[in-house]
Amino acid sequence: MSRRIKLIVAYDGTGYCGWQVQPGKKTVEGELNKALSSLLHEDISVIGASRTDSGVHGLGNIAVFDTESRIPGEKFSYALNQRLPEDIVVRESLEVAADYHPRKCSSTKTYEYRIWNDTFPNPLNRRYATFVYTPLDVERMAAAAEYLEGEHDFTSFCSVATQVENKVRTVYSVEVIRDGKMITLRVKGSGFLYNMVRIIAGTLIKVGQGAMEPERIPEILAAMDRQKAGPTAPPEGLTLVSIVHENNEQCIVR
Amino acid sequence: MSRRIKLIVAYDGTGYCGWQVQPGKKTVEGELNKALSSLLHEDISVIGASRTDSGVHGLGNIAVFDTESRIPGEKFSYALNQRLPEDIVVRESLEVAADYHPRKCSSTKTYEYRIWNDTFPNPLNRRYATFVYTPLDVERMAAAAEYLEGEHDFTSFCSVATQVENKVRTVYSVEVIRDGKMITLRVKGSGFLYNMVRIIAGTLIKVGQGAMEPERIPEILAAMDRQKAGPTAPPEGLTLVSIVHENNEQCIVR
Repeated sequence: MSRRIKLIVAYDGTGYCGWQVQPGKKTVEGELNKALSSLLHEDISVIGASRTDSGVHGLGNIAVFDTESRIPGEKFSYALNQRLPEDIVVRESLEVAADYHPRKCSSTKTYEYRIWNDTFPNPLNRRYATFVYTPLDVERMAAAAEYLEGEHDFTSFCSVATQVENKVRTVYSVEVIRDGKMITLRVKGSGFLYNMVRIIAGTLIKVGQGAMEPERIPEILAAMDRQKAGPTAPPEGLTLVSIVHENNEQCIVR
Repeated sequence: MSRRIKLIVAYDGTGYCGWQVQPGKKTVEGELNKALSSLLHEDISVIGASRTDSGVHGLGNIAVFDTESRIPGEKFSYALNQRLPEDIVVRESLEVAADYHPRKCSSTKTYEYRIWNDTFPNPLNRRYATFVYTPLDVERMAAAAEYLEGEHDFTSFCSVATQVENKVRTVYSVEVIRDGKMITLRVKGSGFLYNMVRIIAGTLIKVGQGAMEPERIPEILAAMDRQKAGPTAPPEGLTLVSIVHENNEQCIVR
């Protein structure tokens, strides 16, 4: 009988063309499929919770797959980490209900966008943070961030390349945390549009630099026009930290 | 007239065979010499304060060189960062007294050794921290660390490959700091022997794992035998954080 297995996956996105399989490109999903197929001698294609972009990192993305194998759920992490490249790590594995689907369950997603705000870049964090030379005013950024919380139409904060019709999303919180020269934007929500966190980051950076007033955010939201928001901040600063499912029926895990 | 310029240099050591120039190898010193020689059209060989090992990182190493150029001291950092690879950054540059020598001045060197202590490695810090699976007891590690502070003959904590005769060094402090799953060993001293911080780290890890009692440290020091201490911990966990000169005559900077 086929069983469904859930993996919690961490990865350094620097060397990958994002999560989703693309012909001829190195992707996180592709590496997982390869490792699983070689381990199980089955043709495995995982379903991911979040298709992170090229260069974006993950600490808690989710992948599920079905298998005929009798390997205990919690053993997959160890077996897979032997076969995966060192920039992808399965942090946890477990057997779940057969109808569990990581994109169809209500969940809280947490992203962090890290900004190294100093005169010079720091070579020890250049792969995991975006370097911004101009001094950033975190009080202004926090004031702007507040306007983004709640349910809004985020058309202005979404790549025009998207095909999604409904652009209303709920952002639970946008925190702006300074620790020395590192500024972390921690964004929690039920779901995000294409490039949404990076456009939020790019806009808050402009506010922090003094190039935009915090009070402009409500106007930008109301305009429903991508041109009104700030630029899409670079991918290296972004990490998908965690995906926590609510306790809804479909997500009951064995 | 020739002028002496001091550089504060940060680097990700992952891709380098250490600081010191070696024929046919990629080194931090080699990249600095190349960038300076191309900028100044002179044949420049820098003098470094600390010859860090292959794979070891730097945030505050020092390099000095003499030049006929009239470029203001503080401008070198900007000009060099244009020519250096992105994993080496000159954080500061300034003109110093002609007899300033970074290895002949009394100074306090601070190293940090970072240990990621979790069930699984974290792909986002694997280049800058050493992964240790066994749970580490930081109280035990701190108790052992205390015995290392002060003036001692550190023969037991020195690679046998060294050519230095006098192995007496003064360690000002060894702090053991836990922040979640990251343990940082912060070691300050006036000078260190070859591999000394990595052998201290390897020994404290053994103590933290319960494989060695903290009270063994005085015996290990007294034995003056490299075999008695723990293994040399891997290079990726080690960063030379800073070198602060004392205010002695020779180190007076213009």
